[in-house]
Amino acid sequence: MAENKATIIVMSGDMDKVFGALIIATGAAAAGMDTTLFFTFWGLNAIQKGNRTGKGFMGKMLGLMNRGGIGRLNPSKFSFGGAGRWMFKKMMAAKKVPPLEDLLQTAIDLDVHLLACSMSMSVMEIDRSDLIDEVEDVVGVAKFVKEAADSSIQLFI
Amino acid sequence: MAENKATIIVMSGDMDKVFGALIIATGAAAAGMDTTLFFTFWGLNAIQKGNRTGKGFMGKMLGLMNRGGIGRLNPSKFSFGGAGRWMFKKMMAAKKVPPLEDLLQTAIDLDVHLLACSMSMSVMEIDRSDLIDEVEDVVGVAKFVKEAADSSIQLFI
Amino acid sequence: MAENKATIIVMSGDMDKVFGALIIATGAAAAGMDTTLFFTFWGLNAIQKGNRTGKGFMGKMLGLMNRGGIGRLNPSKFSFGGAGRWMFKKMMAAKKVPPLEDLLQTAIDLDVHLLACSMSMSVMEIDRSDLIDEVEDVVGVAKFVKEAADSSIQLFI
Repeated sequence: MAENKATIIVMSGDMDKVFGALIIATGAAAAGMDTTLFFTFWGLNAIQKGNRTGKGFMGKMLGLMNRGGIGRLNPSKFSFGGAGRWMFKKMMAAKKVPPLEDLLQTAIDLDVHLLACSMSMSVMEIDRSDLIDEVEDVVGVAKFVKEAADSSIQLFI
Repeated sequence: MAENKATIIVMSGDMDKVFGALIIATGAAAAGMDTTLFFTFWGLNAIQKGNRTGKGFMGKMLGLMNRGGIGRLNPSKFSFGGAGRWMFKKMMAAKKVPPLEDLLQTAIDLDVHLLACSMSMSVMEIDRSDLIDEVEDVVGVAKFVKEAADSSIQLFI
Repeated sequence: MAENKATIIVMSGDMDKVFGALIIATGAAAAGMDTTLFFTFWGLNAIQKGNRTGKGFMGKMLGLMNRGGIGRLNPSKFSFGGAGRWMFKKMMAAKKVPPLEDLLQTAIDLDVHLLACSMSMSVMEIDRSDLIDEVEDVVGVAKFVKEAADSSIQLFI
């Protein structure tokens, strides 16, 4: 049953929650766990290149509001139209905490599997080419359920 | 210990999070897992009939703001006083993704257990008769803990 | 592998989510599980004494907005500048549900382990002396990963 694996579903695109997901994922991978991050909905932002996305009117509108990739995520509180993001970045840098971009790279270097949810990509009009190259696969919920059921850590963030 | 079971606690009443919960639950049930959704607080909205609830002033106020049932949930982002809900419904329909009402019915058809949290029902003045008939039971936290401890997947949404 | 343990990471500082975390933790502990609450980011508020925190300009600003401890947390919805908190406190009291302060004390009485995340304390400029004495330890993510991997219940709230 439970193997030495960690599977984390990242639905949130909030800066602080994505930060938490990456810290836990890199921590689990560093501890020798086979670790998977499964990005869905707003979480997809963390693995997007940052270009504008969407084809129809609503997809474009959503893409416009979400553009920028992992470096442009806003915190869940004290967002203040971007000021919160700037504040947290400064506070993190002052304490020598790596920014999200570096944490994501560390996760990649530690062989954390990055998976993207096909259904939410379809709904939000995000293409495979809008995601960073390191994304391993675009998968459905069945893959997530299978991975999670085999994992000794499963979290929904 | 861990059996072929999935237990998901749904505290959020956000359209996108309830959608995620139902997708995972139906995915787990389709994979043969004995699956339970435990609805609490705002999540109760997803299993309410949609009538006005509450007896006291505050319960009525809360019931007024929450009324409508699963078809009236708003997304966690871009709510825009209901425009976000309309937008997502349109985008989901355009991609042939079933609406929440249908997903909930699929969960019921797949024998996903729907449980409601007695304590939050009491606090929010929601009665058993305000919930859809398919809700299997109204239970306390001890039941959730027992189910979750036996499950190979447990998530908090 | 999975022992009779529950490990809950509390990143949210929303009144309702902290309430959920404490209800599950006390439920798990009452059922005989070795239970750990790992507080990080906004969740740290629930185990702070409530004094003003922070040294630099941004730390102080954050401390100002977050001050007050567990009794001053706002709900995730219907916050209304504090009115939502007042409403929920009244509704909980009317139904004889203990306030957060009492629930936290119950958790402590049931030997629930309270751990605080060192990295988010550093970023948010929160010192050990700003936390209540009952906090058992200030730890890093490695400790959380180890505890969670051994637990039959792990949740992210």
